[in-house]
Amino acid sequence: QGILERLDSGEIVIGDGGFVFALEKRGYVKAGPWTPEATVEHPEAVRQLHREFLRAGSNVLQTFTFYASEDKLENRGNYVAEKISCQKVNEAACDIAREVANEGDALVAGGVSQTPSYLSCKDKAEVQAVFRKQLDVFLKKNVDFLIAEYFEHVEEAVWAVEVLKESGKPVAATMCIGPEGDMHGVPPGQCAVQLVKAGASIVGVNCHFDPDTSLKTVKLMKEGLQAAKLKAHLMSQPLAFHTPDCGKQGFIDLPEFPFGLEPRIVTRWDIQKYAREAYDLGIRYIGGCCGFEPYHVRAIAEELAPERGFYPEASEKHGRWGESLSMHTKPWVRARARKEYWENLKPASGRPYSPSVSKPDGWGVTKGGKELMQQKEATSEQQLKELFQKKK
Amino acid sequence: QGILERLDSGEIVIGDGGFVFALEKRGYVKAGPWTPEATVEHPEAVRQLHREFLRAGSNVLQTFTFYASEDKLENRGNYVAEKISCQKVNEAACDIAREVANEGDALVAGGVSQTPSYLSCKDKAEVQAVFRKQLDVFLKKNVDFLIAEYFEHVEEAVWAVEVLKESGKPVAATMCIGPEGDMHGVPPGQCAVQLVKAGASIVGVNCHFDPDTSLKTVKLMKEGLQAAKLKAHLMSQPLAFHTPDCGKQGFIDLPEFPFGLEPRIVTRWDIQKYAREAYDLGIRYIGGCCGFEPYHVRAIAEELAPERGFYPEASEKHGRWGESLSMHTKPWVRARARKEYWENLKPASGRPYSPSVSKPDGWGVTKGGKELMQQKEATSEQQLKELFQKKK
Amino acid sequence: QGILERLDSGEIVIGDGGFVFALEKRGYVKAGPWTPEATVEHPEAVRQLHREFLRAGSNVLQTFTFYASEDKLENRGNYVAEKISCQKVNEAACDIAREVANEGDALVAGGVSQTPSYLSCKDKAEVQAVFRKQLDVFLKKNVDFLIAEYFEHVEEAVWAVEVLKESGKPVAATMCIGPEGDMHGVPPGQCAVQLVKAGASIVGVNCHFDPDTSLKTVKLMKEGLQAAKLKAHLMSQPLAFHTPDCGKQGFIDLPEFPFGLEPRIVTRWDIQKYAREAYDLGIRYIGGCCGFEPYHVRAIAEELAPERGFYPEASEKHGRWGESLSMHTKPWVRARARKEYWENLKPASGRPYSPSVSKPDGWGVTKGGKELMQQKEATSEQQLKELFQKKK
Amino acid sequence: QGILERLDSGEIVIGDGGFVFALEKRGYVKAGPWTPEATVEHPEAVRQLHREFLRAGSNVLQTFTFYASEDKLENRGNYVAEKISCQKVNEAACDIAREVANEGDALVAGGVSQTPSYLSCKDKAEVQAVFRKQLDVFLKKNVDFLIAEYFEHVEEAVWAVEVLKESGKPVAATMCIGPEGDMHGVPPGQCAVQLVKAGASIVGVNCHFDPDTSLKTVKLMKEGLQAAKLKAHLMSQPLAFHTPDCGKQGFIDLPEFPFGLEPRIVTRWDIQKYAREAYDLGIRYIGGCCGFEPYHVRAIAEELAPERGFYPEASEKHGRWGESLSMHTKPWVRARARKEYWENLKPASGRPYSPSVSKPDGWGVTKGGKELMQQKEATSEQQLKELFQKKK
Repeated sequence: QGILERLDSGEIVIGDGGFVFALEKRGYVKAGPWTPEATVEHPEAVRQLHREFLRAGSNVLQTFTFYASEDKLENRGNYVAEKISCQKVNEAACDIAREVANEGDALVAGGVSQTPSYLSCKDKAEVQAVFRKQLDVFLKKNVDFLIAEYFEHVEEAVWAVEVLKESGKPVAATMCIGPEGDMHGVPPGQCAVQLVKAGASIVGVNCHFDPDTSLKTVKLMKEGLQAAKLKAHLMSQPLAFHTPDCGKQGFIDLPEFPFGLEPRIVTRWDIQKYAREAYDLGIRYIGGCCGFEPYHVRAIAEELAPERGFYPEASEKHGRWGESLSMHTKPWVRARARKEYWENLKPASGRPYSPSVSKPDGWGVTKGGKELMQQKEATSEQQLKELFQKKK
Repeated sequence: QGILERLDSGEIVIGDGGFVFALEKRGYVKAGPWTPEATVEHPEAVRQLHREFLRAGSNVLQTFTFYASEDKLENRGNYVAEKISCQKVNEAACDIAREVANEGDALVAGGVSQTPSYLSCKDKAEVQAVFRKQLDVFLKKNVDFLIAEYFEHVEEAVWAVEVLKESGKPVAATMCIGPEGDMHGVPPGQCAVQLVKAGASIVGVNCHFDPDTSLKTVKLMKEGLQAAKLKAHLMSQPLAFHTPDCGKQGFIDLPEFPFGLEPRIVTRWDIQKYAREAYDLGIRYIGGCCGFEPYHVRAIAEELAPERGFYPEASEKHGRWGESLSMHTKPWVRARARKEYWENLKPASGRPYSPSVSKPDGWGVTKGGKELMQQKEATSEQQLKELFQKKK
Repeated sequence: QGILERLDSGEIVIGDGGFVFALEKRGYVKAGPWTPEATVEHPEAVRQLHREFLRAGSNVLQTFTFYASEDKLENRGNYVAEKISCQKVNEAACDIAREVANEGDALVAGGVSQTPSYLSCKDKAEVQAVFRKQLDVFLKKNVDFLIAEYFEHVEEAVWAVEVLKESGKPVAATMCIGPEGDMHGVPPGQCAVQLVKAGASIVGVNCHFDPDTSLKTVKLMKEGLQAAKLKAHLMSQPLAFHTPDCGKQGFIDLPEFPFGLEPRIVTRWDIQKYAREAYDLGIRYIGGCCGFEPYHVRAIAEELAPERGFYPEASEKHGRWGESLSMHTKPWVRARARKEYWENLKPASGRPYSPSVSKPDGWGVTKGGKELMQQKEATSEQQLKELFQKKK
Repeated sequence: QGILERLDSGEIVIGDGGFVFALEKRGYVKAGPWTPEATVEHPEAVRQLHREFLRAGSNVLQTFTFYASEDKLENRGNYVAEKISCQKVNEAACDIAREVANEGDALVAGGVSQTPSYLSCKDKAEVQAVFRKQLDVFLKKNVDFLIAEYFEHVEEAVWAVEVLKESGKPVAATMCIGPEGDMHGVPPGQCAVQLVKAGASIVGVNCHFDPDTSLKTVKLMKEGLQAAKLKAHLMSQPLAFHTPDCGKQGFIDLPEFPFGLEPRIVTRWDIQKYAREAYDLGIRYIGGCCGFEPYHVRAIAEELAPERGFYPEASEKHGRWGESLSMHTKPWVRARARKEYWENLKPASGRPYSPSVSKPDGWGVTKGGKELMQQKEATSEQQLKELFQKKK
């Protein structure tokens, strides 16, 4: 059954987790470029991560093609471009995802994300050409459906959706925005409307914000669609980091990004709460992004097991709500083998010299100041490339 | 070169990280029993984790035989005993470790840990018989050296060392104790002396406490050995969780154990600090335990690269001190591409409703009270088994 | 010069601080009833506090008549009613305030606040009769102007203003509301409009919220007045407690109210920031409420000394921005004698087991739930009186 | 009855609170110099504070003569010396204390504290001459007993006690040290022994550390006296600030000292805990120092009311354990009217950007480093005077 058949029939579809962060910790992705050459360099590591998500309950395996557009790989060329072609990276990603998907009941989704070309103000034709290159691979490898994800500008997301729709396959589109909307100030509700009009059957958000904030954004999208009398399935793939203190551009601006985010990692219980709230909001494609490890995906599957009627394979190694502690030698540890305990725990950080939240970087005191500062200081990918050439 | 040749020549030996916690998050180990049947059930997952540690810089791959003694597997029998024999689990662990070790320059260490038999007050002969069973497998599979780790009682650790020494192979011994000493009140210095006298060539601590606390304990061990004019190599494999608030029995008693520890996870920069301090203290076998992921081990290897003269393979995907951010489009993110930034960052938890530290469970207000309470309430493995039988 | 002459000419008027909290700590006011019988019982204590505020820079001394309406004093009768008449309390308050005001350049303002009669659903005539009783005293004692403060319901505040206007004296009106508006859901902008239409020349907020939140509310009031093309002076007298975590009813619902608020007390530097922001917002009557001690009022006067052209008397005992530390024997303490230091300090709580913010009590998870719960559970003053009778 | 008769008969004696901090907030003492010229300049403010402590339960009113030695007043001469003589300050302090003491049942204690002369390495005769000048006033004004307090060096404290003993009056001596001992490294136990041998009948600590730490120090003093078979009464007058993060020199080195200490202020419930623990440790002279306000002293008197058989006057304005909330209109506020609630509350700071503890200033990483740094950088009062002359 395809993704739309599943969603149309009311099924809950569980997404997977964030590959770049998980594989960075495992030693196969470089923070900064965040490019997926590991599909060629270390396919066994990518394959194993897919397997873990499948086992944890994922119904969709996304090809590991994040930032695998040709312009991005070139831009980050110092790392990979000469060695590995864009096509190879994308093809390998499709092959690995399909191989693992066949080991279980999962769909393969080919994914594209925002491009340096757009950020460097290339025109629509040029940007769409970039997407089309990746799409060619996805069609050749016959993925099950397509996802346009991690877009900060709805304009570019729409361009991506238009290209992906040429394939005739179902298209999902998620933006990495919060309740304040996209980087041009388009509110979430309008973003959703534009994406659906461009051809997306599934819309929502991914990355940049924690589950709470992401659900607020999807709610605004839902309301926007309702107001416009449009129909679409809803999708959320948030961070597995607590980010109550984020500004408009999400966790990138937090001082802890990307090498000091550990104390913000959400627990499995936070994820169960998220899964329930997403479900109650009407979202039926529920997954995760950066920070999501297999046990987080399993937590989605466990929370929604009553609705779905089954547990994922990986639950054989997990007691519900800590019940596996019920045989501990210490009575006070045994006492933790219950739902109320974990639901109500406010976990300590073990870091008494750290604050609980941070001021995001790159901000003036007032909002006006902030916008100004961001506009003034942000550097285009093109400028960056020149900067890099000079360095060499 | 064997472990002792390496250490004797002044080489730094880098250990690996904690398998039970890492594989729990990946879906292959059950928290509570913490047994390693994954070596038989999912060898590919165990193999992949070994590979990641090897790639991150580990010089030793420990067989995944934690809690793989026969009495423990039986005791946790509801999960595995009928299906998989103790011998099979241990043999598979050796085979996988050896296979991956051969892919690089690493030694294989067979490991034993504390037993339910000891905690249930079995006599020395019975307890040693348990260790001998595992040792038989290690000899058959010809591991390079042996580790007795995770002992709360020096008496049992000594018994283990004695058995392991029968093999003629080098023996390392680490206890999961803090500066207050073992559960009978034997101070760390005396523990070290007893272990060396029993035949251990390498002594130190593993698990239960964070890097800071663990180094304090090893320092006491070092001083104990010096006072007794004994020589041994020092070893530390601490938690990758901040635990400044622990009591005598370490992180088990923290309210967050084991499903809410996320905010305590240490950063790679914390680990670089740890590696440097361990080195300065004279420790030359430096690794990790629960919570250590491959990127934490890489941080040890990177911090000590000047001394060792080389970087680990996984450093190809990691800039020193965040340098890979130097090409970011946002100037304020580029500004994070330097050592001072990450060294001084006090990372926020994103959890304003959580405290920074916790009171450990199972404690009275005064120390006297605590000891009493723990003595009175702790349950022997035997009692637990009976409890479990009743439940069935 | 009267209050309106001062404000009309562009002068900054500095209010005083919170009497009930300050005198509670000094032992003269009982938390719970919060009634001002100290004016009769311990006039020297009330007089001394007035003097301290005057010395710190207050241009207005409010009569200590908070909760001194007859119905309130009766309701709290177990404490004072039989002993001291409402009239005596109010008269003594006027006499003391006038005595101290004459020692310097300050006006005396007679104040009324919300009544049990309104909360018990008495009709307009009855409620206004209560205010008129206090007003009679204020007229007899010839206060300089009148303040209706600490109203949660704009309807009652309007009734109070109407009564006070009968006197012909200038009337200020402040509500203890946040940006969400009054307890019937009237937004701040509309509250301001109604108060000005009822005759108030000065409007704003007092109590219940911290400086940040209070300024947000006054900003909404200002916008409401502008939209309605009404003119009035603006006034703010917030708490001296940080309350970023408050709900609609402010600090009363915080678990720390009223006996555990210490860690929330604002510093003098927080107050300087507040005074500057209030000034920049166009507020010209700037004072404080509960938690404000004389040194907080001095901080307002010091921050605005450049605009006002002079420092208050109490500044003879205070160096600007810590300059009095410049002679300390320790160089690292001397290094604190500068503005940047105190402006940027994030002061630690010394309480590692405490969270940084709290969930307010009396709330359901969702807003809907909360409102319902508050409606259902709140007890009228009348019911309370019956409860109290039963207890006796 | 004199102080020794009271203590010898087993009576609990309640001290007062910290005048310099309380009067700094009221506008009469300058932080930095911390000198008590207010006794002459604003006797009514000093008198009122004495009255509040008396009313709160203090049995001893200390003359407000802290830092009122001639050398200190001269050294801080820029503020007061030319205007007000040392003798006048001390005489006025005695007169005010006696006037208020006569309003109730309290003793007057004349107090001396550490001198710039000692810190500038003047010899014993010179330093003792300074104490003798103050003692002359105390004798002329016939105080009831004498206190040598706030000494960082036991040598100087002993010199002070020797001088005070010349009067024939009982002498109490408290040092501002923590468990690590005095600034020359003399441990608390030895300090106590030396003070008793010099003639002190009452010994203990005051200032610099929070109640918890101070009680640990007094415990060490008690053990020192027991070991030396000496008898003396014990006394504690700690800070009303939480300082778990202090180093050897206490709260002076905290980055928050002295203008950002607000979040560390202890609650009345913290003080009840302190009073109980002090009592259980055998301390019978229980008071406070900097940060203690009248309501903190009342909390001592209320906690120990069962032992003493009566409540202080100020308790008429205070319900036990929040009982005055039992008539609140909101049920969830009424629910706070019980002991368990306030005993267990972990009060939030309302400051999510602040850490819970701080690193003290003036410290190297290691203890050795710290000592060195402090030695090298600390400036003598003499050097400071020269520095000040240059500035002029």
